[in-house]
Amino acid sequence: MEKTLGYLGPPGTFSHEAALNYCKGRACRLKPFATIKQIFAATANKTVDAGIVPVENSLEGSLNLTFDLLAGNIAVKIKGELHCRVRHCLLAPPGLKIEGIEKVYSHPQALAQCRRYLEKILPKAAPIAATSTTDAALQVAQYNNRGAAIASRRAAELYRLAVLQENIQDGPGENKTRFLLLAPEDASATGRDKTSLLLTLPDRPGALYAALGIFAHHNLNLTKIESRPVRGNLGKYIFFLDVTGHRKDARLAEALLETKEKNIKVKILGSYPRAENCE
Amino acid sequence: MEKTLGYLGPPGTFSHEAALNYCKGRACRLKPFATIKQIFAATANKTVDAGIVPVENSLEGSLNLTFDLLAGNIAVKIKGELHCRVRHCLLAPPGLKIEGIEKVYSHPQALAQCRRYLEKILPKAAPIAATSTTDAALQVAQYNNRGAAIASRRAAELYRLAVLQENIQDGPGENKTRFLLLAPEDASATGRDKTSLLLTLPDRPGALYAALGIFAHHNLNLTKIESRPVRGNLGKYIFFLDVTGHRKDARLAEALLETKEKNIKVKILGSYPRAENCE
Repeated sequence: MEKTLGYLGPPGTFSHEAALNYCKGRACRLKPFATIKQIFAATANKTVDAGIVPVENSLEGSLNLTFDLLAGNIAVKIKGELHCRVRHCLLAPPGLKIEGIEKVYSHPQALAQCRRYLEKILPKAAPIAATSTTDAALQVAQYNNRGAAIASRRAAELYRLAVLQENIQDGPGENKTRFLLLAPEDASATGRDKTSLLLTLPDRPGALYAALGIFAHHNLNLTKIESRPVRGNLGKYIFFLDVTGHRKDARLAEALLETKEKNIKVKILGSYPRAENCE
Repeated sequence: MEKTLGYLGPPGTFSHEAALNYCKGRACRLKPFATIKQIFAATANKTVDAGIVPVENSLEGSLNLTFDLLAGNIAVKIKGELHCRVRHCLLAPPGLKIEGIEKVYSHPQALAQCRRYLEKILPKAAPIAATSTTDAALQVAQYNNRGAAIASRRAAELYRLAVLQENIQDGPGENKTRFLLLAPEDASATGRDKTSLLLTLPDRPGALYAALGIFAHHNLNLTKIESRPVRGNLGKYIFFLDVTGHRKDARLAEALLETKEKNIKVKILGSYPRAENCE
C-alpha cells in the first residue's frame, strides 16, 4: 500500500532529495510542508504515514527546533534515520557558460559553504541571497539574466537548468545531513538497531555519570550524547543519548528498567535500524 | 591600553552587538572580519588581541565551524563567554508605516524566526532574502521602496532606519546566542570559572563513562557535553565538555592529571569566568 511521507518543502530542497532517497524501492507519495513543526503535527494526527525531518548539520532546517520538538509533547516516535551527503551544484540556464555568469543566487549558508569555489572560479560574480536553494534555482530559471544558482541536482531537473559543476562545497566533502524518519510508532527490532533517549537530570556533579553507568554496565555503547539546558528551568539539564540496541533487546530493556528503579526520568524517543546512507 | 577585538562583520550584525557589549567599560577597538576562520587566525597571529565568535544557536555563524576550529590546530584559547539575547526588530525608512510595507528583507533564518509575526501583522508583504540582517537593513535604506528589514536595533542606528517594532521573533523570547572570547592565552582564575575540554575517546562501551568518572569523583559538575564523530576516523569520538572550575583549581588540576595517567587524550580549550549576560 502506498504510504504518504511528509518532508520540508518546497520540492528540490535537500530534504526533498532525502525523502526521494528514502522512497526508492518503496511505494511512497511525497507531501511537502512549510515547517518542521507541521511535519511533527501531521505525523502525530496521521495526516501522513511518516515524516522526514533534518536534525543535524542541515542547510534548511534547524537542529535546535527538531530537538525541541522531540523533547515536547507531540506524539511521534523516531522510526529511522538517514545520513545524506549534501552536494552543492552550480546550476545555470541552458547556454550560459561559467565565464558569462555575473550573479550567483543561493541560501546564504550555501553561499558560505561554497565560498572558496566562488572566490576561485567566479571572483567577479555577485552573491545574491535567496530564501532556499530551490528558490535560487527558480529565480535563475525565471529571470535568465546571467545568473547561476547553487542548489541540488534535483533542483536542476525541476527547473530545467544545466549542471555546470557538481560538488562545489569547500572542504573534504563531508557535508552530511542527518534526517530522522518520524511515525506514530517506532520500528521493530532488526538486530542492528539503535535507540534515542531523552534523560532529564538534576544539575549536580555525578548525575550524568551515574546515569551513564547503567548503560556502561550493560555493555551498551553510546553513539551520541548532547546536553541542553531545560528552558525556563535552570536547575535541570536534558540529555539526548543514542545507544546501540533496540529497546526490546534484553540488555537495553534491563538498563531502561534500572533507570526507572533509580528514578531517572527517561523518555524513549524511538528504536530504529542504524543509518541508511543515501547517495 | 586599548585592545583590538575581532568580530564577525559587517557592522550591525548580532556578533557586532555582542562585541560592543563586551567592550562596555573597556578600552576596545573593534575590527570586523568576513569569516570565523579569519578571526581564529588573526587571534593566533596576534593581528588582534582577542576575537569574539558565535558558538551556539546563532544566526550568522556556524556552530559546527566554530567547534571544528576549536578542535583544530590554530593556537587560540577560550578566554571568556557571553550569552546574548537576539532581539529581532522591524526596521523601516523614516516615514514608512507598518500598513505601507510591501516587502520584508532579512536573512532567511531571521525571516523564519519571525514567521508568526509576519503572518499576523504583514500577511501581504513579500519576504526577500538577504545575505545578513545587516545587508537587509542596508538594502532597505538604499532602495527606500516600501521595504522593511528584520535586523538588530544597532543596524537601525547605522543605517538611519526607524524601529517600528522590537522583539518580533516567535516564541518565548529565549533566542540566545552564546559567544566565545578567543585569545592567545586563557583567563586567570576568578573563583567562579569554567573550563572547556576536548576529549578523544575510542568508540566502545564504557569509554565515556570511565572518563566522566574522573570528573565525578572529584566532585566537578559538567555544564555541557556534546559528542561528535571524528572526521575520517570512524572508530573514534570526540567530546566537548564544559566543567566547573579553573584548570589551576586543585580539584580540576587533579582530575586532569588523572586523565593523563589513564591515557585519556584531553585538550584544554581554556579556563574562563562563567557567562556574562549581555543585554
